[in-house]
Amino acid sequence: MSCSTTVVEVKLGPRSYPICVGYGMCGPAGAQELRERLERHLGKPRDLAIVTDENVAALYLDPMRERLRQAGWRCEGLVVPAGEESKSLAVVERLYGRLISMDMDRGGAVLALGGGVVGDLAGFVAATYLRGIDFIQMPTSLLAQVDASIGGKVGINHAAGKNLIGAFHQPRLVLVDVAYLRTLPRKEITCGLAEVLKYAVLAGEPLFGWLESRIEELAGDAVDTPFRGADWVQTVASCAAIKAQVVADDEREADKRMLLNLGHTFGHGLEQAGGFRDFSHGEAVGWGTAVATDVAVRLGLLSTAEGARIERLFARAGLPTSVRGYSVEAVMEAMRSDKKRSSGRLRFVLPRAIGDVAVVSDVPGADIAAALRCRLGDESR
Amino acid sequence: MSCSTTVVEVKLGPRSYPICVGYGMCGPAGAQELRERLERHLGKPRDLAIVTDENVAALYLDPMRERLRQAGWRCEGLVVPAGEESKSLAVVERLYGRLISMDMDRGGAVLALGGGVVGDLAGFVAATYLRGIDFIQMPTSLLAQVDASIGGKVGINHAAGKNLIGAFHQPRLVLVDVAYLRTLPRKEITCGLAEVLKYAVLAGEPLFGWLESRIEELAGDAVDTPFRGADWVQTVASCAAIKAQVVADDEREADKRMLLNLGHTFGHGLEQAGGFRDFSHGEAVGWGTAVATDVAVRLGLLSTAEGARIERLFARAGLPTSVRGYSVEAVMEAMRSDKKRSSGRLRFVLPRAIGDVAVVSDVPGADIAAALRCRLGDESR
Repeated sequence: MSCSTTVVEVKLGPRSYPICVGYGMCGPAGAQELRERLERHLGKPRDLAIVTDENVAALYLDPMRERLRQAGWRCEGLVVPAGEESKSLAVVERLYGRLISMDMDRGGAVLALGGGVVGDLAGFVAATYLRGIDFIQMPTSLLAQVDASIGGKVGINHAAGKNLIGAFHQPRLVLVDVAYLRTLPRKEITCGLAEVLKYAVLAGEPLFGWLESRIEELAGDAVDTPFRGADWVQTVASCAAIKAQVVADDEREADKRMLLNLGHTFGHGLEQAGGFRDFSHGEAVGWGTAVATDVAVRLGLLSTAEGARIERLFARAGLPTSVRGYSVEAVMEAMRSDKKRSSGRLRFVLPRAIGDVAVVSDVPGADIAAALRCRLGDESR
Repeated sequence: MSCSTTVVEVKLGPRSYPICVGYGMCGPAGAQELRERLERHLGKPRDLAIVTDENVAALYLDPMRERLRQAGWRCEGLVVPAGEESKSLAVVERLYGRLISMDMDRGGAVLALGGGVVGDLAGFVAATYLRGIDFIQMPTSLLAQVDASIGGKVGINHAAGKNLIGAFHQPRLVLVDVAYLRTLPRKEITCGLAEVLKYAVLAGEPLFGWLESRIEELAGDAVDTPFRGADWVQTVASCAAIKAQVVADDEREADKRMLLNLGHTFGHGLEQAGGFRDFSHGEAVGWGTAVATDVAVRLGLLSTAEGARIERLFARAGLPTSVRGYSVEAVMEAMRSDKKRSSGRLRFVLPRAIGDVAVVSDVPGADIAAALRCRLGDESR
């Protein structure tokens, strides 16, 4: 039921921290390991607030709180409603109130037990309570395990847009138990795979070929199939290692960290054009990567053969590589208002080969439009 | 009307920044210098939000905005009500909305034009908008010029207490024009002097002796007396240099930065016992320093002669060194709930000599109580 834990270090000088990827570490059999890792990286047990959402709480909060209490931590569970709406100043204010009523001082810590929403929200609270207290990520979704929990980006939404309010606040420790993936709906596994495949395009071999050899098995992994714990540890740890390296090279997203946005500019355009209801983030990123691949082939940056290989892997993972019912104009308009623009100019992250991705400025609008037309099946113009 | 500007560097590696202390730099005669300093440290003019309060806006906002616009900055003034109540999440949310409607992206900047409240509030907004944008301090009160504008502590209040929400976000530039002191009420000059004298106790000579040679003249300086511009530049720059050194040695207040809290633990106790109405922060810190001096003498850490010299300087500046009408118990209770406690234990910053201040743990409660009794004129026990 368990296999040994892989540790990846995020090297940021005095703020370095480990990402521990294992199977069973946060379950009943991992109590001793959990206790030891917390003490090794955070010191003696003290006040701890477990922030989680209603869905995760129903499955995991009580036993986790009990294990942590037995390990000596004075902890309470702070449960927020599930979903993006919890990334709001109103919820943040309520959480501050809970920390204050716990009498938490600067020595306390916040643990995020959940997916990306919980991590972003809890991290923002940890970043801004008493000017910043210790923060631990315990991601439960695949998306959060390979991406959102690593790198210190935390934040909440504003009525005018997503993630407009936030901070950089690195966790002290990221504890990734792939056993949490067993209770994820299959749709969420598929969405998380979009980010996994993004890393594979970014870093190339051996990850890309390894995924090609077993993508259907991973894509089918969820509650109703035999669970491939060791394969998941290897997959998640490989992605974590790539992200850790990028974050260490460029903590505050000046340059290299932009590369992690492969597929995201187009993807956000589709998400927004679909009113954030029609597509999940993962689906949109998968589709966006197909568009970026198309653009790169059109510009002669990427060979047709490698473009096809990328697209095939995304399709095999169950991700949409073309969609219907959205106009090129709607997606382009949404992209223009995307917050990732810098000083008014849109830049695109494009693959030049499997394992070689670059930021490209001044891409001709006609090539963007042609690729979008192809991936939107839009015959309107 | 003007004198040359003194530049003090806060050395924090890639986040280093200058504090420019001058006389007239932010007025009409300083337009060229202002333009040059902004461009040297922030690069080409771009979006800029000037956050200020109603009082400062009435005197200075329009001409400052006009000068900045002429220098090429696309700027707007964001005016908040004067007073501590503006350090709230509600005001922060409104300011986010203003930045968004200005279409401000990550290349934009926030300028705080005002006292400590404006600096703390604007800095928190700059720290958390789009995960942090550039921030410029232009402090107008003496307290903000020598203390609050330097070191990156930014934040707002929570219903349960002051400064419970915040971040460390260093400014890119601090522009201190002592000419702003000319429109301060004398009471505010006196309060600011409490922090000035704190630096003198901390750093000793030459600042301490220099202040002894002219404290009445500085304490009397305000709108109705001839203004000592050059003396103020020297005073403020000396204090800024001390704070810059402490911040460079200990950015996140692990240890050395604690020393800047001389007088503050006792002072906060008095502020709170007085419901934050009876005493200004400066008055409370002045009184708190007298208590700390008393405690140090009682413990044999500080000579009686030096203790008397410290107390005399505070009294000559017009600061209260003892007060009436508050019980020892009320002040001690307020101190216990002070947020500066670390893991439950109160520590005290005490002078061992003029120019030698240390953090002392495990001070006997009886000595604290005796010093408080003496400075509160409390005969109730």
